[in-house]
Amino acid sequence: MRYSQFFLKTSKDAKEFDSVNATLLQKGGFIHQTMAGVYTFLPLGLRVLNKIENIVREEMDKLGSELLMPALSPKELWQTTGRLETVDVLFEARGANEASRKKNDASYVLNATHEDVLTPIAQQFRPSYKDLPAAVYQIQTKFRNEPRAKSGLLRGREFRMKDLYSFHASEEDFEDFYEKMKVAYTNTFQRLGIGNDTYVVMASGGSFSKHFSHEFQTRCDTGEDVVFHAMTANVLFNREIAPSHAPPLTQQGEAELPIQEVEGKGLIGVEPLAEYLKIPVEKTTKTILFETQEGEVIAAAVRGTYEINENKLEKIVGKEFRLASPETVKQVTGAEVGYAGLLNLPSEVQIYMDESVKGRKNFETGANRTHYHTINVNFGRDLPEPDQFYDIKVAREGDLHPETGEVYEVFRASEVGNVFRLGTKFTEAFGYTYTDEKGTQQPVLMGSYGIGTSRIMGVLVEKFHDDRGIIWPSQVAPFQVYLAELSADLLVQRAGASAYEQLTKAGIEVLYDDRKNASAGEKLADADLLGILWRLVVSKKTGDKVEVKRRTEDSVEMMGVKEFLRHAF
Amino acid sequence: MRYSQFFLKTSKDAKEFDSVNATLLQKGGFIHQTMAGVYTFLPLGLRVLNKIENIVREEMDKLGSELLMPALSPKELWQTTGRLETVDVLFEARGANEASRKKNDASYVLNATHEDVLTPIAQQFRPSYKDLPAAVYQIQTKFRNEPRAKSGLLRGREFRMKDLYSFHASEEDFEDFYEKMKVAYTNTFQRLGIGNDTYVVMASGGSFSKHFSHEFQTRCDTGEDVVFHAMTANVLFNREIAPSHAPPLTQQGEAELPIQEVEGKGLIGVEPLAEYLKIPVEKTTKTILFETQEGEVIAAAVRGTYEINENKLEKIVGKEFRLASPETVKQVTGAEVGYAGLLNLPSEVQIYMDESVKGRKNFETGANRTHYHTINVNFGRDLPEPDQFYDIKVAREGDLHPETGEVYEVFRASEVGNVFRLGTKFTEAFGYTYTDEKGTQQPVLMGSYGIGTSRIMGVLVEKFHDDRGIIWPSQVAPFQVYLAELSADLLVQRAGASAYEQLTKAGIEVLYDDRKNASAGEKLADADLLGILWRLVVSKKTGDKVEVKRRTEDSVEMMGVKEFLRHAF
Repeated sequence: MRYSQFFLKTSKDAKEFDSVNATLLQKGGFIHQTMAGVYTFLPLGLRVLNKIENIVREEMDKLGSELLMPALSPKELWQTTGRLETVDVLFEARGANEASRKKNDASYVLNATHEDVLTPIAQQFRPSYKDLPAAVYQIQTKFRNEPRAKSGLLRGREFRMKDLYSFHASEEDFEDFYEKMKVAYTNTFQRLGIGNDTYVVMASGGSFSKHFSHEFQTRCDTGEDVVFHAMTANVLFNREIAPSHAPPLTQQGEAELPIQEVEGKGLIGVEPLAEYLKIPVEKTTKTILFETQEGEVIAAAVRGTYEINENKLEKIVGKEFRLASPETVKQVTGAEVGYAGLLNLPSEVQIYMDESVKGRKNFETGANRTHYHTINVNFGRDLPEPDQFYDIKVAREGDLHPETGEVYEVFRASEVGNVFRLGTKFTEAFGYTYTDEKGTQQPVLMGSYGIGTSRIMGVLVEKFHDDRGIIWPSQVAPFQVYLAELSADLLVQRAGASAYEQLTKAGIEVLYDDRKNASAGEKLADADLLGILWRLVVSKKTGDKVEVKRRTEDSVEMMGVKEFLRHAF
Repeated sequence: MRYSQFFLKTSKDAKEFDSVNATLLQKGGFIHQTMAGVYTFLPLGLRVLNKIENIVREEMDKLGSELLMPALSPKELWQTTGRLETVDVLFEARGANEASRKKNDASYVLNATHEDVLTPIAQQFRPSYKDLPAAVYQIQTKFRNEPRAKSGLLRGREFRMKDLYSFHASEEDFEDFYEKMKVAYTNTFQRLGIGNDTYVVMASGGSFSKHFSHEFQTRCDTGEDVVFHAMTANVLFNREIAPSHAPPLTQQGEAELPIQEVEGKGLIGVEPLAEYLKIPVEKTTKTILFETQEGEVIAAAVRGTYEINENKLEKIVGKEFRLASPETVKQVTGAEVGYAGLLNLPSEVQIYMDESVKGRKNFETGANRTHYHTINVNFGRDLPEPDQFYDIKVAREGDLHPETGEVYEVFRASEVGNVFRLGTKFTEAFGYTYTDEKGTQQPVLMGSYGIGTSRIMGVLVEKFHDDRGIIWPSQVAPFQVYLAELSADLLVQRAGASAYEQLTKAGIEVLYDDRKNASAGEKLADADLLGILWRLVVSKKTGDKVEVKRRTEDSVEMMGVKEFLRHAF
C-alpha cells in the first residue's frame, strides 16, 4: 500500500488522552474518536482489528459455527428472560425525530449480548438429544450504555466482541466443552501475543451460584479489574470474589482498657474517626445494616479499613437484601445512620462478623447512639465472641490467601475474555428442553464465552509501546514492512518502487512511504509511531541495498531485498 | 463441513412468507427472522453474505481504503447537517430501562448512513489539495426505522451495506471518479451474477439539483422500484423522475358539447366520478392546490388517471411548497377540498397544467363549488389554453418517452446500488474546505456510493430459484459441492468420508451430508433447496465412483472424485 494513496494521517502533536492506547492509536491514525467510548477504525486500525479477529475466528472455528445475529431485537425476547428492566447498560432504539416516530413509534432493544436472541433459534434448530451439543459464535458489534466510557478502546459504549454460546444435554458434556474453550482461549491469547501476561482468573458465577466463572485477565496498569494472585496455591481471583484474610494485628500484651462512650459528631470515614479517637484505623469497626424483602435485619461488620462485599455476604445469608433504610436503622439502633455498632443490638438482628474483626483488643464500634462511638471494646468482656467469623469483605492489597496463608500478589488487569456457565437460566426462560432417548423433555444447559476483540487492540498498545510509539506483535501489525523513501531524488524513488514491487510480489504486506511532502525525520518518526516490526529505508546512501531495522532494536543493517526476505520471513 | 457438525436445519414445511427470498432462505436455514425486517444470518447464510461482501470488497479496494465507522454517533453531527429532524427513518439509541437511563440519560443517533460521521474525519485527514482526491468505504450494518419492513432481505430495519465516500478538489476530478465507480459497479454486479439484469437507472439527484443520481436496478418482480426503459433512446429512469408523455386520446371529430355543472357529492377517486358522470376516466382532471411558505398558491392539474409528481413540479416552480390547507383551499376556490378545478381561479393563483391535460375535448374539472363538477369543458371556448404545458405527473405504464416518442418498457426492480453526487451539501455544513496551491480555501466536492449487500442476497434468490429451491450463482454459493451419503452402510460411509477428504484436500468447499437420521429423499431434497451447484452422491450403487449432478440439470453422471475435480474446477 502506498502511503500517498492510503487514508492515513499521523499527528505527533495531537493531544494526550487518558490512556496510552487512546493517545498512540489516535496519534498514529489508527482510530478516530467519534464520541466518548465510540471510535471509527480508520484503514490502518481496521487492518489490526481484522488480524486480531481472524486469529480469534480461526480458533473458534475449531469449536463452533460462525453466524451473525442482529443488533436490534424485539423487547419481548428480553422480557422473557426478565432482563429488560435489570440490565443497567441496555440501550433501546426508537425513532430519532417526530417524523420517524410518526411513521413507526415502536422501540427495540439494541443488544448488549445475545443469549436472548440465540436461545429461541437453538430451540428451533436443536430440539433433540441427537442435535446436542451445539456451539455457535459471532464476531460483531456490541452496545452498552456505559456512563463513564474511558481509556480508549478499553471501555466503550460500542465495541467489537466475539461471543460464543454452547448448548448441552448433560453436565459432563458442558464441563468437557468448558475445558476445551479454556484451552482454545489460552491458544488464542498466545497467538495474539499476550499469552504470557494473561491469567485465568476466578470470578463471580452469578448470584447464589456455587460455581465460579473464569476471566482471562491481561496484566495492564490501565485495566479496570484488580486481580489477587496466590502464587503458591497457583490460583487467581478477581477482587470481586477473592477470599481473603486480613493481615493479623500485633497487639500482644496489650491490656484491656475500660470501655468508654465518646462523642464524635459528623466524622465521615474511618480515617478522620481514628484520628479523632487517637487509635489506629485497624481498631475501628464498620457495621452496616441490611434488610431483606421480608423485613429481617442483618448487621455485617468488618475491620474499618475494609468494605463489605455484598456478594460474599449474600452467599452466606442465602437470600437477597438491600441496604437498610434510615428508618430501619433508627428503629433497630435508636440512632441516625452512621453510628450503628455491635453492642446491644436487638436479638432479632442477625449479626455477621468478618474475620478481620476477630482477635482485636480495645477496638471501636458505633455506639448505637447518635454522634457516639464506643472505644476499648473487647470480646468476652463487653460482648460475647461469636461462634463463627466469616469472610465478607472486599479483599485489599496486603491480604492473605486463606488456604495457604501467603500474601496475595495484587495487580491491575484488563479482562480480554471470559467463560461463563449459564446453566438453565436462559433455556428455562424460553422453555427450551431437549427430547432424550426415552422421549422425555430434559433441561438444556448453556454456556457463554466472550472475547473483546477491540479491547484487545487497546490492551496490546498498553503493553507494547515505548516513548516513540507502538510496538505491535508482528502477527497483528497492520503491515509487515514499513518501507520509507528518504529522498525525492529520482534514483531513490526508483529504488523505493522496485523494493516495494519485489516485497509485494513475495506476498509481503508493505506500507510504502512514498510521500513527497514529508521529511526524512517525519518518515522515521512515523515508522516508530506506527509500530511495524521491520523498517526498510532507501536513501541516496543505500544504492541497490536497503537499510533494515527492527522496531525494537537500534542497529541497522544493509542488505538486498532478496536477502532481507530470506532473513526475515 | 460435516452437516452433522454444522448449525443447520432445513424445514421444507415451514410457512410461506411474503416473498420468495424470505421463504426459501428460511426453509433452507440461511436466515432466521428475529423480528420484521431484522434477520440473523445463520452459518449457512453468513457464508453467502461473506462471499457477496468479499466480491464487493475486492472491487472497492481498487478505488478506496476500507475503514469501519461506528453505529452510534453524537446528535451534534446530525444537527450540523440539519438532518437530525428531517431524515424520517432515523433511529436514536438511549437507555432501555430506568436503571440504564439513571446511569446515563443521553441519547445518540443510530446511523442510517455515514456522511455526517465521515466528513469531519476527512476534514482532519485531508486538508490540502495534495491530499485530494480521497475515497474510503466500509461494509457495515445500517439501521432504518422502516415502518413497513417486508420482502425478506429486500427491505429491512437492519441491513448490511457497503458505502463509499469520495472527496474532490474539482468538478472534473469528481466526474472522473464518478464514472470509474460506475464501471466498478458494473464489474461488481457482473461478478455477483446479476450483471445481465442490472441496469443503470437515472434517479433524483436531490431537491432542486439539476443533476441526476444513478441507481443500479436489478429486474425483480418483488422489487419496490418501477423502472421506465426507453429502449431506442437507450435510457432508463426511476418512476420518481421518469419524464413522460401521456398516450394521446382519440377524440377526432368529437363536437364540443355545452358546458355544464353537475352535482356529484362524496365521490372519492376519479373512477367513481367518471362512472357517475358517464365519461371516460381520461376526460377527468385532477387539480391539486399547494402553498409556499410565503403564502403563494399554486394549482397543478393532470389528467385524472395520473398523480402529481411533486418533485417534478418543485423543479419547475423553483421553490418549496406543501399541500394547501383546507382553509386555503376554501379561501381560493370557495369550496371544500375535493372540488378544485381550473375555471375561475383567482388571478394570483399560479396554474401549472400537465401535458396530459392538453388536446382534450369536453373534459371534466372541479367546479370550485362544493359537491359540483363541471363537464364538457373546452380550451379556447371555456378557458384560455395556456402558453405552456409541463410534465408534472408520475409516469405510468403506457406513457411515452418525450424525446423519442416510444412507449416505455416498464418493469419492477430492486435497487442494489447507487452513485450519488453530494456536491458541497455536507462539506459546507462542516466548513470543510481545502487549501489550494495559492493558499486559498476552496469548497470540497463529495460523492457517495452504496451497495446493499444483504439485499443482493435476497435479490439473488428472487432471480435464481425453481420450485425445488434456490440456484445460487456458483461464486456466492455457501459451498461448492453438496456431498450426500445415501446409506448408513459402512462401505457407503467410508466412500463418503473418502470423497469428502479428497475434495477438501483439493481446496474445495464441501457440505458433507453425513446425517444418520435423514432419509435419502430428505438429503436429495435438501441438495435442491440449498442450491449448491454440484451435487455428489455416494450410495450402495456407486462403488468407487460418485454420482455427479448439476443443480440446474436433471441428468447424472458417474465418475471418480479425481475425474470430477478435473471436470468441474
